[in-house]
Amino acid sequence: MSKKLTSRAEDYSKWYNELVVKADLAENSAVRGCMVIKPYGYAIWEKMQAELDRMFKETGHQNAYFPLFVPKSLFEAEEKNAEGFAKECAVVTHYRLQNDPDNEGKLRVDPEAKLEEELVVRPTSEAIIWNTYKGWIQSYRDLPILVNQWANVVRWEMRTRLFLRTAEFLWQEGHTAHETKEEAIKEAELMNNIYANFAENFMAIPVVKGLKTESERFAGAVETYCIEALMQDGKALQAGTSHFLGQNFAKAFDVKFTSKEGKQDYVWATSWGVSTRLMGALIMTHSDDHGLVLPPNLAPDQVVIVPIYRSDEQLEEISKIANLIMGDLRAKNVSVKFDDRTTHRPGAKFAQHELQGVPLRIAIGPKDLENGTVELARRDTLTKEIVPLDSLTPKIENLMEEIQSSLYKKALDYRSEHTTEVDTFDEFKEVLKNKGGFISAHWDGTAETEEKIKELTKATIRCIPLDTGNEEDKCVFTGAPSKGRVLFAKAY
Amino acid sequence: MSKKLTSRAEDYSKWYNELVVKADLAENSAVRGCMVIKPYGYAIWEKMQAELDRMFKETGHQNAYFPLFVPKSLFEAEEKNAEGFAKECAVVTHYRLQNDPDNEGKLRVDPEAKLEEELVVRPTSEAIIWNTYKGWIQSYRDLPILVNQWANVVRWEMRTRLFLRTAEFLWQEGHTAHETKEEAIKEAELMNNIYANFAENFMAIPVVKGLKTESERFAGAVETYCIEALMQDGKALQAGTSHFLGQNFAKAFDVKFTSKEGKQDYVWATSWGVSTRLMGALIMTHSDDHGLVLPPNLAPDQVVIVPIYRSDEQLEEISKIANLIMGDLRAKNVSVKFDDRTTHRPGAKFAQHELQGVPLRIAIGPKDLENGTVELARRDTLTKEIVPLDSLTPKIENLMEEIQSSLYKKALDYRSEHTTEVDTFDEFKEVLKNKGGFISAHWDGTAETEEKIKELTKATIRCIPLDTGNEEDKCVFTGAPSKGRVLFAKAY
Repeated sequence: MSKKLTSRAEDYSKWYNELVVKADLAENSAVRGCMVIKPYGYAIWEKMQAELDRMFKETGHQNAYFPLFVPKSLFEAEEKNAEGFAKECAVVTHYRLQNDPDNEGKLRVDPEAKLEEELVVRPTSEAIIWNTYKGWIQSYRDLPILVNQWANVVRWEMRTRLFLRTAEFLWQEGHTAHETKEEAIKEAELMNNIYANFAENFMAIPVVKGLKTESERFAGAVETYCIEALMQDGKALQAGTSHFLGQNFAKAFDVKFTSKEGKQDYVWATSWGVSTRLMGALIMTHSDDHGLVLPPNLAPDQVVIVPIYRSDEQLEEISKIANLIMGDLRAKNVSVKFDDRTTHRPGAKFAQHELQGVPLRIAIGPKDLENGTVELARRDTLTKEIVPLDSLTPKIENLMEEIQSSLYKKALDYRSEHTTEVDTFDEFKEVLKNKGGFISAHWDGTAETEEKIKELTKATIRCIPLDTGNEEDKCVFTGAPSKGRVLFAKAY
Repeated sequence: MSKKLTSRAEDYSKWYNELVVKADLAENSAVRGCMVIKPYGYAIWEKMQAELDRMFKETGHQNAYFPLFVPKSLFEAEEKNAEGFAKECAVVTHYRLQNDPDNEGKLRVDPEAKLEEELVVRPTSEAIIWNTYKGWIQSYRDLPILVNQWANVVRWEMRTRLFLRTAEFLWQEGHTAHETKEEAIKEAELMNNIYANFAENFMAIPVVKGLKTESERFAGAVETYCIEALMQDGKALQAGTSHFLGQNFAKAFDVKFTSKEGKQDYVWATSWGVSTRLMGALIMTHSDDHGLVLPPNLAPDQVVIVPIYRSDEQLEEISKIANLIMGDLRAKNVSVKFDDRTTHRPGAKFAQHELQGVPLRIAIGPKDLENGTVELARRDTLTKEIVPLDSLTPKIENLMEEIQSSLYKKALDYRSEHTTEVDTFDEFKEVLKNKGGFISAHWDGTAETEEKIKELTKATIRCIPLDTGNEEDKCVFTGAPSKGRVLFAKAY
């Protein structure tokens, strides 16, 4: 099996698909559009989960679990939300299979076992959760509710790609309930900030915080906050969203509370989520033609040790040193693996760890035994150096931080170079065609202009950046007044 | 809202249902048979997950994720497995909803969006996983595969009860692949032992390790190992199972490997799982008429501090002491919460923490401020004592261990008292009727006898204990030769 990847320059999309499979992150399954997340890919997702979960709990959120299914009558209660998701719903209609009388050994759906009401496999859980919150909320004393759920959801997308767009995906969805509009907006902003911090400080992915335009907003939301990242091919990727839902779901499910002053009012809501799509963002931000590049924070193994030996005695000596190194590194919370498989040669091991993005590789050979050294190779820069054993641990501790921040800086530089302010539509098209990336341009604020630009260029408004300022000017397309620049891009 | 529970003596089943809801563990949802796991209940489940996950990883297992759906043609591939689950399957037949032309604002299933092949919502994942393993396994070098998945599954049970039997439940399912029969059997035994250790040492629930009879075996397994626990009402509960699957799934999905000697053979398999059902076992092993009783290992808050005050100055002084106590306890890895809610009186807080099973409650009042003491109340024994502040932390550290082991001992004593050896069928019926619990009796090894005893008494063979010895005798029902005693009981 060749592990050599198509290069990014040759075919970015093919490079991505090959990398996901060859680095053992995920693969397509027998179910249309559904993926298998392989152990190595899942270990990275677990790192993301653990850190996000910590951040959620630190800000007062608790986890809970709500049903996989949404009865159709609840699903359709919030009309805009229902309309937004109806076209891509997996629907359970029966609850039993039976032997197929025409086909021995085969099963068929039992026509007698038709459900009275169809069940939608959740594409998102606002409906089932707000129907539940109705029973939890009577007075202001029951508020706020700050709940998160780790779950699988299903959206029957027609064109799917591993991690980026799959029929089933894993995510977390927060659903909060508040007394006031202001408190709910503050929550939606808080969670968007948490996502931004997580992306930048943990995943080393720079993001722009912004608001979605009406046409890109979550179905049922009053306002959608988002974080947008830029991939290496100049396309944008929405990495997380946080919605201020107003009282839309409270009204649809009749969820009222009695205030401190004894008045009845509908409850204010938010919801927010990130998904296994972040794996796609991770891959397309840092990786190279040799394979995955992982920031140390997300690496299941931060360091791998490969022994190079001719005799059992040499292996034994190397193993002793490897054990000492592992003890020292683990004491410093650096995760490390000794790859002493006898089924693979060192070259094959090097290739695999490179492909899988292990941040640092230590090789120990006979010469190192003589000299009290090891060879240390850095995945992100592909550089190697000989390091004396006695300075190895502090060196690696420093490198963990250096690699993490250097990957962030590299991605930030790329984004800066690929964010272009344009003032004419010709320039807009030219930059989009030849350079890609974010295009910062004035827009007149109408859905019509947004739609026309999309038709002509395939670029959409990724967000109205929160720090856009109030620089008034003219729309790049219509010349009508604009309140500030927005970010356009082609997007995943 | 009254928090007073029906007593166990009055109606055990009602007591259970009330406790689950009033202690905020779970509730029924709008979806038939599906539950909502509330934050407090979910926090307990998270403790179980974390410990099990640690034990799995320590023994070389990795997590992965496989699709929610199983195409019907894969589902039916292993016939016995399919037959076992076909009667309780949620089936997805369509992938889109549309506006209902006869009913404005309502949706209906789009008849044009019928799937070519129906998808079964996984009741268990052997089929989809073994279809995947086919692509992962070529040679002995690819073995063993030691994979676990945390997931939701759906079994359309007709009679459901919170945690004990729900249409959707959460679980982990391990699926391993091996070169030899011996290695697979060893794995199945290892995992059953891990479950037993977890139940006894972490959940404080004594269990019997055994084998299932053929009629109670997992559909598709060659042998099912299990751990069986005894609830306070004398009924047994299957707390975990580990299956040796032989080559059944490898043959159904044609998964062969080339051995070291160059021969082709089918792969050997195991699967093993525990579920949110363990929450039911936890509740019914330790709790009392006042509510939940939690072993410290499973308590989201191990200690709660309740201030009792008349003035803001008193509260301030108490808060200072509470902060000192919390600092000390957290340094010793004891989780502690200061319940300074102003919306509830101390009496209401006491009642809530009792109902929710917080192992230790500290109350601090004006008198304690004068004396440098606190009142310490133990949930399991309902005893209170006054403790000087300077000996509080070591005292609590000791109590954490003492409560954990004392709950285990209490449950073990109960089980010993309710495990009865009988040698006649009259005695069998008498014990079952008047005392309940495990009945240890000789059985002739036939499914017919097992079935007849079940018909006559509703008792089933819970397991053939692994340590049953070889004491040969006569079947308690037929008088035919028996190879050893087995455990009968009525069961959840």
